[in-house]
Amino acid sequence: MLLRDLGEAELLRRLAAYAPPGQLDDDAAVLRPSGDAPLVVNTDLLVDGLHFSDATMGPEDVGWRAAAANLSDLAAMGCGPVVGITVGLVAPADTPWAWVEGVYAGLSSALGHHGGQLLGGDCSGGDQRMLAITALGRVGAGVIRRGDGRAGDWLVSTGPHGLSRLGLALLQRELPAPQATGLGEPLRQRAIAAHRRPRPRLDAVQALAQCQPPGSPWRVGGTDSSDGLGAAVAQLAGGAGCVAELNRNALPMPPELAHLPQGEGWCLGGGEDFELVLALEPAWGEALVAALPGCQRIGDLVAPGAGDAAAAGSLRWQASGEPVTGHRGYSHF
Amino acid sequence: MLLRDLGEAELLRRLAAYAPPGQLDDDAAVLRPSGDAPLVVNTDLLVDGLHFSDATMGPEDVGWRAAAANLSDLAAMGCGPVVGITVGLVAPADTPWAWVEGVYAGLSSALGHHGGQLLGGDCSGGDQRMLAITALGRVGAGVIRRGDGRAGDWLVSTGPHGLSRLGLALLQRELPAPQATGLGEPLRQRAIAAHRRPRPRLDAVQALAQCQPPGSPWRVGGTDSSDGLGAAVAQLAGGAGCVAELNRNALPMPPELAHLPQGEGWCLGGGEDFELVLALEPAWGEALVAALPGCQRIGDLVAPGAGDAAAAGSLRWQASGEPVTGHRGYSHF
Repeated sequence: MLLRDLGEAELLRRLAAYAPPGQLDDDAAVLRPSGDAPLVVNTDLLVDGLHFSDATMGPEDVGWRAAAANLSDLAAMGCGPVVGITVGLVAPADTPWAWVEGVYAGLSSALGHHGGQLLGGDCSGGDQRMLAITALGRVGAGVIRRGDGRAGDWLVSTGPHGLSRLGLALLQRELPAPQATGLGEPLRQRAIAAHRRPRPRLDAVQALAQCQPPGSPWRVGGTDSSDGLGAAVAQLAGGAGCVAELNRNALPMPPELAHLPQGEGWCLGGGEDFELVLALEPAWGEALVAALPGCQRIGDLVAPGAGDAAAAGSLRWQASGEPVTGHRGYSHF
Repeated sequence: MLLRDLGEAELLRRLAAYAPPGQLDDDAAVLRPSGDAPLVVNTDLLVDGLHFSDATMGPEDVGWRAAAANLSDLAAMGCGPVVGITVGLVAPADTPWAWVEGVYAGLSSALGHHGGQLLGGDCSGGDQRMLAITALGRVGAGVIRRGDGRAGDWLVSTGPHGLSRLGLALLQRELPAPQATGLGEPLRQRAIAAHRRPRPRLDAVQALAQCQPPGSPWRVGGTDSSDGLGAAVAQLAGGAGCVAELNRNALPMPPELAHLPQGEGWCLGGGEDFELVLALEPAWGEALVAALPGCQRIGDLVAPGAGDAAAAGSLRWQASGEPVTGHRGYSHF
């Protein structure tokens, strides 16, 4: 059964099953206000061959990842409750309905885990499959901003990095067999799950609020690591007018990954780990590291030296002072 | 200068100029609440070759139309102030920057006319140019719903139909030269403008609120005619469980268009006129027709006859009782 066989009206009718009854009946969705919390809105594109591929994931994974990537941006802004998402679906007429069904099942599954509903959307034909997701949420205890770090802050990562890239490498058989086998089955499965089913860290936002030191105002620098840990750190450092000093012995990755020659590069530049990277006053950072399993201090923000203003936004290793390299993000063009 | 030459970071830097300062600096956008009005959210896709074409419009037109189509859906829900839009842009690496610049200039121009700001978005490479717009607005005096019409309501159109389709025909040289010339230059220009620069009827929503008869509760059936006048009427009739009776002598189109053999078909099924089609109690309809230039009564909603329940959502001509045909919308698949 292809989309061509269904036609647009029947496709829309079937997709409406993934939204609350009547939700897709009108020209647009109406959101009732619920309290005074500001809204957070985010739009992400996922394009076949660039952001997903039949070779490495099924349609449910595509849907899950699409929602998760968007909700991760909400988490990176300090989002509490998720309101929902709109979904723009572009697909050629010869796309199987089963693929679309899988994608929407994956989207629904992610919303089921993290909150929020399918609010609306649009469908169109096109040469290449593409999803455009817009997610809406409400700010929780406070807004997290890329530019709100300060010199003296701890740099904190809510979880491991490089796993998603390792998962992709395993799915694409990039690693020689002995290397892949040496990682052990549990880590291989964990890496593949990290790639196919990333978890937006809305739970970490909650933990962050619970760890706020009494008397401290809300001030949290932060972003998610969708473009890579190094890129996230560089954004926090740049936004704070600081240099980021990273502890090379405390890079957030599993030891087995650290032993791979690619390990450090994948940890810093692999991307798509969807963890939060935060700049916090030390007492807050310490409390969060103690409270949130997997969360660790990875370095500090420091003021650039005199005459060193150009270095704001740069990364160096804490012990050696050498610049951190090899973490530059991916350019789409 | 192609997107490949710019790279993603420089592209994002340039696009930020179309948003308020700092608006695009973070992972997502934060919207401060302004009063208790519910939000309206809408997502539309525009795909190269299906929704726009270099052959018939420039990049500023593409941007304007993309915003206008979305704001038209907000208007169709009863939107008052527009909050803004997010823009997802997919474009191949060999896309000229000048094209993207033109699209964003057109988007900005539409927002300048109708209110709202560029709130955020995303960019990606891809095989085919595509825009995914999500628009956010606040409900004005009340929500307009497709299903809120009732038997006895007037069917009202806020403006002419078929002009956008005529404009496309002129741009594609579909009409024989004598026929095109016979239309006269003013109508030709008007039709081309209707195709390239449609106006979302947020003004009509304001007029509608001002015309609400004293003592009448807010009850407005309505949708926009993006998919064609006939499709809009069918949705209102179906939502109300009614039959739509149209006055064939009062079809909303310029007389010159009515004289073309294609005129009636384009008026009913041409699509993309982005007017509002409303179902209103007669006193309200009469007041709106009197207050809003170009607005006219096109027919009525009537209860289906006994044993005629299957006819709900159907269209017939008022005088003859014959079914209205030839207005079926376009299917994307």
